[in-house]
Amino acid sequence: MDTPQESKWLWERLMHSYNHEHDHSGVNGERLATRLAQLAAIGLTAERGSNRIGFSQEELAAKNLVKQWMEEAGLEVREDGAGNVFGRLEGHHRQAPVVMSGSHVDSVPNGGHFDGTLGVLAALEVAQAWQDTGFCPGKPYEVVVFTDEEGARFNGGLTGSRAMMGEINLDQQLQLQDIFGESFQNVLESIGLTVDQFMAAKRDPAEIAAFVEVHIEQGRVLEEAGFPVGIVNGIAGPCWLEVTFIGEAGHAGNTPMGHRKDALAAASQFILEVESLPSKISSTAVGTVGKCQVHPGGVNVIPGKVTVTVDLRDIHRQTRDRLAEAVQQAAQTIARQRSVQVEIRETLNVEPVPIQQAMQEKAIQAVETVGLRPLVLPSGAGHDAMVLGKYVPTGMLFVQSKQGISHNPEEWSDLDHCVMAVHVLKKWLEQLVS
Amino acid sequence: MDTPQESKWLWERLMHSYNHEHDHSGVNGERLATRLAQLAAIGLTAERGSNRIGFSQEELAAKNLVKQWMEEAGLEVREDGAGNVFGRLEGHHRQAPVVMSGSHVDSVPNGGHFDGTLGVLAALEVAQAWQDTGFCPGKPYEVVVFTDEEGARFNGGLTGSRAMMGEINLDQQLQLQDIFGESFQNVLESIGLTVDQFMAAKRDPAEIAAFVEVHIEQGRVLEEAGFPVGIVNGIAGPCWLEVTFIGEAGHAGNTPMGHRKDALAAASQFILEVESLPSKISSTAVGTVGKCQVHPGGVNVIPGKVTVTVDLRDIHRQTRDRLAEAVQQAAQTIARQRSVQVEIRETLNVEPVPIQQAMQEKAIQAVETVGLRPLVLPSGAGHDAMVLGKYVPTGMLFVQSKQGISHNPEEWSDLDHCVMAVHVLKKWLEQLVS
Repeated sequence: MDTPQESKWLWERLMHSYNHEHDHSGVNGERLATRLAQLAAIGLTAERGSNRIGFSQEELAAKNLVKQWMEEAGLEVREDGAGNVFGRLEGHHRQAPVVMSGSHVDSVPNGGHFDGTLGVLAALEVAQAWQDTGFCPGKPYEVVVFTDEEGARFNGGLTGSRAMMGEINLDQQLQLQDIFGESFQNVLESIGLTVDQFMAAKRDPAEIAAFVEVHIEQGRVLEEAGFPVGIVNGIAGPCWLEVTFIGEAGHAGNTPMGHRKDALAAASQFILEVESLPSKISSTAVGTVGKCQVHPGGVNVIPGKVTVTVDLRDIHRQTRDRLAEAVQQAAQTIARQRSVQVEIRETLNVEPVPIQQAMQEKAIQAVETVGLRPLVLPSGAGHDAMVLGKYVPTGMLFVQSKQGISHNPEEWSDLDHCVMAVHVLKKWLEQLVS
Repeated sequence: MDTPQESKWLWERLMHSYNHEHDHSGVNGERLATRLAQLAAIGLTAERGSNRIGFSQEELAAKNLVKQWMEEAGLEVREDGAGNVFGRLEGHHRQAPVVMSGSHVDSVPNGGHFDGTLGVLAALEVAQAWQDTGFCPGKPYEVVVFTDEEGARFNGGLTGSRAMMGEINLDQQLQLQDIFGESFQNVLESIGLTVDQFMAAKRDPAEIAAFVEVHIEQGRVLEEAGFPVGIVNGIAGPCWLEVTFIGEAGHAGNTPMGHRKDALAAASQFILEVESLPSKISSTAVGTVGKCQVHPGGVNVIPGKVTVTVDLRDIHRQTRDRLAEAVQQAAQTIARQRSVQVEIRETLNVEPVPIQQAMQEKAIQAVETVGLRPLVLPSGAGHDAMVLGKYVPTGMLFVQSKQGISHNPEEWSDLDHCVMAVHVLKKWLEQLVS
């Protein structure tokens, strides 16, 4: 198992400060580092990033490599019609519902080497550790690689996990075209799958006892708190609003302050409300204005029309919706006070997925067993766990991300933290499969 | 003197509601309407706008038409090396410094039919009225047409008036290129002028007793107050700042509110300061943020860098500079409070030109003589009067603009208001030439 020359730097950087004391109970840091580097070599970009778009030959090659490792770990390998890969370790109770862990190996264009990949390799490392230490689970255990989580090709995402949970609307799916105008059906066939097989990927949720996903945090909370891992208490579903204030354009010099209907001043007041409202509603809620378009946009012209986007998230539907309501009311109030018009359009609404208390408690126990202190935090981004979490008991474990940088070649997590996450995952899964 | 077919609509709309009672003392509304329509036919656009860019054949044709009217009015026509046209009515005191009135006949691309043109025709109408009624001024009187006020071709402007007042830096001027890459010198030569002649256009300010410019307001103050004309108390010089807030970009979902350094939230707080500070400093001060660029600009990305432009104006240098200082301090304070960085760059600084009290008093007297109530207001935009006002006693009279719309085919002033302005200008000039 050699590290390819082109990704040797990744292996060296991972191993450079690795503390081998973490190698015990069948878990092996160097193996994890080598596999991360081997996957990194597939679709490696000139900027040392990862280019493994969903449904690409690179994603296929990465999945084939994982399949090979699954076989080496003694797992029974199977692929469904959506291209999801499963490596199964049989349990004492062969008919019992399965405990699953995994993530994805596709990336955004020029992404990082930990997003998704780490979750797959952590789940595999647990299976390998069990095999190496002779541990036999009660329930069956499956390591899973979901297809096309990022959705970079069809501007969708979570494709494999949605197919498995029966969330695909076939009509809509068949209308999708990738950036080259290629239909979803053609792309599927290019990697040896058919639409019928794709739809047959649907699995009965009753077959799944639990799902746990290890993932890099893609935020700074763990780093700032100095924690290697964190337990996710919910996956925040975003609600996106597009808010347009319409005032009156005018000459910056010839319109006294009291005569103005400045759409940008209205939008600015609104942006500060989006900043202050979340903490009044929930400690896990967040609100962000990420875009601001000003018309007509001249230095000496009072803005007549401003459109801002609003991204609102919380892990509970109730508080997320209350926040969305408060934000919309704030927009209306500001518009009324300033005698400008406002138009509000909801452009996205994804259901938040809270993590069951029982799952969180098992995770806390696993973290403490490994000798770490538990830290609980929300996931602001969507993950395959968000799809499974709607149907089956689901958990997520976050690993510290350097500076929160993600979807970028700079994405980084220390190997010490990755291996600690494997130990926590292992203890957590041992409770779930028992 | 026929109205061309293509601009007949302008003449008809002007005359439609015209009250002929304003035709007295030698002033003739229909003549003014006909001349506005005749000028409108030169460079008329498909949208019924005006395309008479500075130094174009259209501007030249418009000046030639005005020269013809000057001659018809018995004025002595002369053109200087900058293409400025003068029509002189000799006074009793031939050696006395001259009283001047006028404006420009160039336009922005697809501009309106009143901006500049009305000021030239009003000054001409006064000369014509004097001739028709046998009035002979004490001091000489010159109707002036300044070249290239708008600066649409070289992104500069006020070219003719600056040449006359000796404000041209020849090195800088010769480096100018128009949008087609044509040098200033070539463009000048294309309309029969030379660089030497251009620089010789400089006139001794002592030769000029006073300058008065009639211009449309390009704002809504007069319309909202219900006044046909207004007396300008100063021309606000703009100070432009470019303010950049640099925070930290991050994922909208994975960064708790308390951990953020949101550059757009900082900019929003700043925009509200730019809105509220002017009235704390001066009743004539205004502040505008007209552009806002957000980086990276994704719906789900916390803005890491935001650049806004600030346009600050007042008619007095002291208060304008105090406002600029207060705005910059606000930016610094906000940046400090939010732990973001701020960079401030001054991109323009034009000297404000207050109108002398004595000139304003003469204008008030003229307004009252005509039977109107005086309203005094600042000019936010620059005009040829801004250049002359630095060197010679200068006044400006604003005419009501419909909805303040300007630099647009929709630009409009009622003929009643235009003619009232001619009467006020006439009374004002009669004081100045005596």
